[in-house]
Amino acid sequence: MSKRNLDKAVVLLSGGLDSATMLAIAINQGLDCHCISFDYGQRHVAEIRFAGRIAQALGVKSHEIVHLDIGNMGGSALTDESIDVPENGEDLGDGHGIPVTYVPARNTIFLSYALGYAEVLEAHNIFIGVNSVDYSGYPDCRPEFIEAFENMANLATRIGVEGRPVRIQTPLIDLTKDEIIRTGLSLNVDYGSTVSCYQLDSDGLACGVCDSCRIRKAGFAKAGAPDPTLYA
Amino acid sequence: MSKRNLDKAVVLLSGGLDSATMLAIAINQGLDCHCISFDYGQRHVAEIRFAGRIAQALGVKSHEIVHLDIGNMGGSALTDESIDVPENGEDLGDGHGIPVTYVPARNTIFLSYALGYAEVLEAHNIFIGVNSVDYSGYPDCRPEFIEAFENMANLATRIGVEGRPVRIQTPLIDLTKDEIIRTGLSLNVDYGSTVSCYQLDSDGLACGVCDSCRIRKAGFAKAGAPDPTLYA
Repeated sequence: MSKRNLDKAVVLLSGGLDSATMLAIAINQGLDCHCISFDYGQRHVAEIRFAGRIAQALGVKSHEIVHLDIGNMGGSALTDESIDVPENGEDLGDGHGIPVTYVPARNTIFLSYALGYAEVLEAHNIFIGVNSVDYSGYPDCRPEFIEAFENMANLATRIGVEGRPVRIQTPLIDLTKDEIIRTGLSLNVDYGSTVSCYQLDSDGLACGVCDSCRIRKAGFAKAGAPDPTLYA
Repeated sequence: MSKRNLDKAVVLLSGGLDSATMLAIAINQGLDCHCISFDYGQRHVAEIRFAGRIAQALGVKSHEIVHLDIGNMGGSALTDESIDVPENGEDLGDGHGIPVTYVPARNTIFLSYALGYAEVLEAHNIFIGVNSVDYSGYPDCRPEFIEAFENMANLATRIGVEGRPVRIQTPLIDLTKDEIIRTGLSLNVDYGSTVSCYQLDSDGLACGVCDSCRIRKAGFAKAGAPDPTLYA
């Protein structure tokens, strides 16, 4: 099924369900995948352990863990201990409000790093698992943001200026969670090696009640597939 | 002379001559200035010590030192030990070639961080000391890059989406080095507290021969002002 296209991709890999699916899609396109995972003081740092498992299982060319000071910025329930993670479904993005779990400029910072790596590797693809369906409340998950970033990226860099533009690839952007899960299962993604929970306990069990767990559970239910997640 | 405008600015402060001048300009506009300096494994890490001196001397609201893993990317003479810093004036950007001292996606990464801080602080100004005259070889110092970044930034963030856009301010972009120096002197900037050299020695003396030293020396000469730099 998979073809060689001799090109490289920088893939932002979080350890979650979405980015694991996206990595499988990029590999299936025949791209040499170089993954980056960020340790930015997020509460769900277990993500990074899961990212390593997925990268190994799917066979990537390289996997960098980058430490970021982003946690010092505060302002989000995912990095600021003084803000509670919502557990009652009230914080789901609805296209109007912006969820409190939003991290300031996070995707911009992640993509900027990826751009630096892309320039060094001469990779013309950057994959980011943004999704405008389930996370419509985040401004930096929208197609218009991605398009503006790509435009900026090709003005910012050697690869852009020299006429070999980089593309920001967002294969999940229009998919619902159950469509993402069905795609991943068709590419043999082991979702037992992914994590979604914002507040995994010390035994590695998902809480089952945070918004991210709710969305994941509903996705597996709608896809008609068993959810391999271990819940507390 | 200075007026209060009750707005805030995030200022990217490198410790060099340009960003010190820019900070003085921002303060003179009555902005509350919050500075960020990056420690990214650059050879000229002395910059950060100088940035602290300048921030204190000019009276900023806050000054954050952010550690970045950018040095791992390699690809530039400023972070990669295996590439020599040019000393013969051959690497000056001429509008065509891109200098080997160019760091991949550096300004994009710096501005992305600044954007996150701006969002948290509700600051509507980000100051970056890019200059398209003396550094025309760097793609991420051009006005079209800055414009594209600003456009992207206002799609990426709460402050943009909610109609209080952030502006990327580049007061130095069209100035020659001697014009920058004259502006700074009129605002009482102490250039003895700034550093330009790419390869300061262990006694803190500038080499006098790297491109950055050459540009600085020529700027003071053209401005008709004494250069307070201590050269080896």
